Amino acid sequence: MTVDSKSQNGVNGHSAATPAEKIQNINGQGGQPELAKLDASKLTIELATCLKPLQEPETLRFGMNFTDHMIVATFDPLTGWSIPELKPYGPLTLDPSCSCFHYCPNVFEGMKAHLGPDGKPRLFRPNMNMRRLEGSAERMALPPIDGDEVLKLVKVLVTTDARWIPEGESFSLYLRPTIIGTRASLGVTASDSAMLYIIASPSGPYFPQGFRPMSLFAMGENVRAWPGGTGGHKVGGNYAPAFLPQRIAAKQGYDQVLWLFGEEKNITEAGAMNFFVVVQRDDGDMDVITAPLDGTILPGVTRASCLIIAADPSFQEKYKLRLHIHERTFTMKELMQWSEQGKLVEAFCVGTAVSVGSVNRIGFEGKEITLPLNGAVLGPVSYAIREQVLGIQEGRVQWEDWSVLCEE
Amino acid sequence: MTVDSKSQNGVNGHSAATPAEKIQNINGQGGQPELAKLDASKLTIELATCLKPLQEPETLRFGMNFTDHMIVATFDPLTGWSIPELKPYGPLTLDPSCSCFHYCPNVFEGMKAHLGPDGKPRLFRPNMNMRRLEGSAERMALPPIDGDEVLKLVKVLVTTDARWIPEGESFSLYLRPTIIGTRASLGVTASDSAMLYIIASPSGPYFPQGFRPMSLFAMGENVRAWPGGTGGHKVGGNYAPAFLPQRIAAKQGYDQVLWLFGEEKNITEAGAMNFFVVVQRDDGDMDVITAPLDGTILPGVTRASCLIIAADPSFQEKYKLRLHIHERTFTMKELMQWSEQGKLVEAFCVGTAVSVGSVNRIGFEGKEITLPLNGAVLGPVSYAIREQVLGIQEGRVQWEDWSVLCEE
Repeated sequence: MTVDSKSQNGVNGHSAATPAEKIQNINGQGGQPELAKLDASKLTIELATCLKPLQEPETLRFGMNFTDHMIVATFDPLTGWSIPELKPYGPLTLDPSCSCFHYCPNVFEGMKAHLGPDGKPRLFRPNMNMRRLEGSAERMALPPIDGDEVLKLVKVLVTTDARWIPEGESFSLYLRPTIIGTRASLGVTASDSAMLYIIASPSGPYFPQGFRPMSLFAMGENVRAWPGGTGGHKVGGNYAPAFLPQRIAAKQGYDQVLWLFGEEKNITEAGAMNFFVVVQRDDGDMDVITAPLDGTILPGVTRASCLIIAADPSFQEKYKLRLHIHERTFTMKELMQWSEQGKLVEAFCVGTAVSVGSVNRIGFEGKEITLPLNGAVLGPVSYAIREQVLGIQEGRVQWEDWSVLCEE
Repeated sequence: MTVDSKSQNGVNGHSAATPAEKIQNINGQGGQPELAKLDASKLTIELATCLKPLQEPETLRFGMNFTDHMIVATFDPLTGWSIPELKPYGPLTLDPSCSCFHYCPNVFEGMKAHLGPDGKPRLFRPNMNMRRLEGSAERMALPPIDGDEVLKLVKVLVTTDARWIPEGESFSLYLRPTIIGTRASLGVTASDSAMLYIIASPSGPYFPQGFRPMSLFAMGENVRAWPGGTGGHKVGGNYAPAFLPQRIAAKQGYDQVLWLFGEEKNITEAGAMNFFVVVQRDDGDMDVITAPLDGTILPGVTRASCLIIAADPSFQEKYKLRLHIHERTFTMKELMQWSEQGKLVEAFCVGTAVSVGSVNRIGFEGKEITLPLNGAVLGPVSYAIREQVLGIQEGRVQWEDWSVLCEE
């Protein structure tokens, strides 16, 4: 697929001739320019001459510190993807008219590299992130990107900056592959130019003062995503609209927003995490429920993994759980009923940053649902899933091909 | 209002200590740092030593060329707004972790400066843009911004680069005040740092090959905005999700998307413009209808102005029109009925870029509604409104205080 910016033109206020268009006009209809694909094997490497001092792991705060290097490649509509460069971490220089500042066709991924017991860095199901990145870029009409090549670049950055991966449980190197639109024009049309960059940030536990449950403020007035919108993609523009609701939740004394949708107040996500509940059944088993991927829910890698783990007989046997897994719409009314009936066993949030985090209370319309944690920081189901997920991520537990070494 | 980032903290994965927070901690609860406000009177001026050659007006394409200068000010959570600088147009240098690339709390305005018959540049209702900019920034939880100071800066840029304003009807200097989040952290929280910049682009007619009607492709599968979302603010993240639908419309042979909403297929906006229809009444008068500002519709300056102009008795008398103005929800079903009954007189789109543009056909579910333009490029109502709007913008027609000179 090449970027078909031509079909979007003809109206001055909303588009303008691009270099690719010009060359197409020169070459005629059949004369598509040959666009270079992203090729990780061509990566050029310029190592930093002066390495930064490592930070003490216990002083790390999420996303504030970055490693010595970054990887950058650019897409030009005339020539395609540039040769990717690994180079010292440093600022980007961009024209103030670039699409990324105005129309925000920006997409990203969040991934973590953990050190295994063998001391080798590994990624958790990185192919899922790469497929999602491809989908996000396509939805934003960005130039096409080959996630397999991006993954090769991610691995090189991890191995190059491996000294930055803190040792110890819940420590990791957070990776942020990002694609921004760099078309330098105010015409409201797809960005035919782009920049891919990958940066890495050493990361400590989600709760620096010690693991604890989260409180959620259920909100229906502000809506995170909508059918026909972009909530099912990892798109930058999904996030900033949540800042003000998050501030409202914080002022009410809650950690995160629980996002509701529609008149029935369907429960969708919590903060920037997927959300699960555990409901006691009459037969003694438990239902594990999360919202379905209907386009309003981010298809989280941790979400997908929790669903598979929770459904697995050997996992259930190991932790003495009998679980039934449901991806289905569920509402605040159901949640309150389960709570009143004493059936609401647990609620938990999952995502790359938190892995699996428990919920101890949910505020909604002046009332509060409390979760029966019995003094623990996690319920039995979220505890077991968290143990399993972290075990796989940190290379202590073997599970299919989910833990991927960064070195060949 | 100071940025209350503290209330959003406590969770590592979703926030981090900011400098403002640190100083608050040092100063204690009552020790708010004194934050400087944006102050246009302190503007420093560094003129370009080498001015760029002006482009021939007829070769201008929207948003591709920029003047010699730009204005920049930055907000730091420790110190507030910096002294604004007018300096040569040039690239921005930003950390790759900046919020603007990842979470997109970016907002902007679009305005035009026209040369009047007196040769002096003037803006069209700029206070409306400034109030909207303040609202957009607040919705994105950006640092507070004083639009009155921004307007003073806009005027200085216009007068400094006045040689760039092309003469002649439909020519203007397009102005783009922009605020981006510059917090250099991947924590998913409001950007406590920001950059305001203003750039200017000489601009020709919306249709460079001559004014013509537009065709619209009505679409309900992709949704531009929704209740509880950000469609009522001028937020960067509203725009890129429209690129792919726009490409779909173009492939079907239409200029722009006509955005529908909900099961009733309410008609909301067209492309990045507000949308109006004119319906013949039984009494011989005409109804002029546009969607109400329910939070899913951008409160366009041109939209608001068209509503006032169309309702004005002296305007109606001048153009021999009898119009009744309605801001109300209307649906595709109504539109098709009006068309079938021969009552659909006109449809038109309004916005800063196009001013007022007519519609000649609307595709919907395989059918097509055609508008009876009788060989003209505009219907009688849109023609009259366009004449009036352009007359006011270009200083040929006096209308309240809508045309604002850039010089004192």
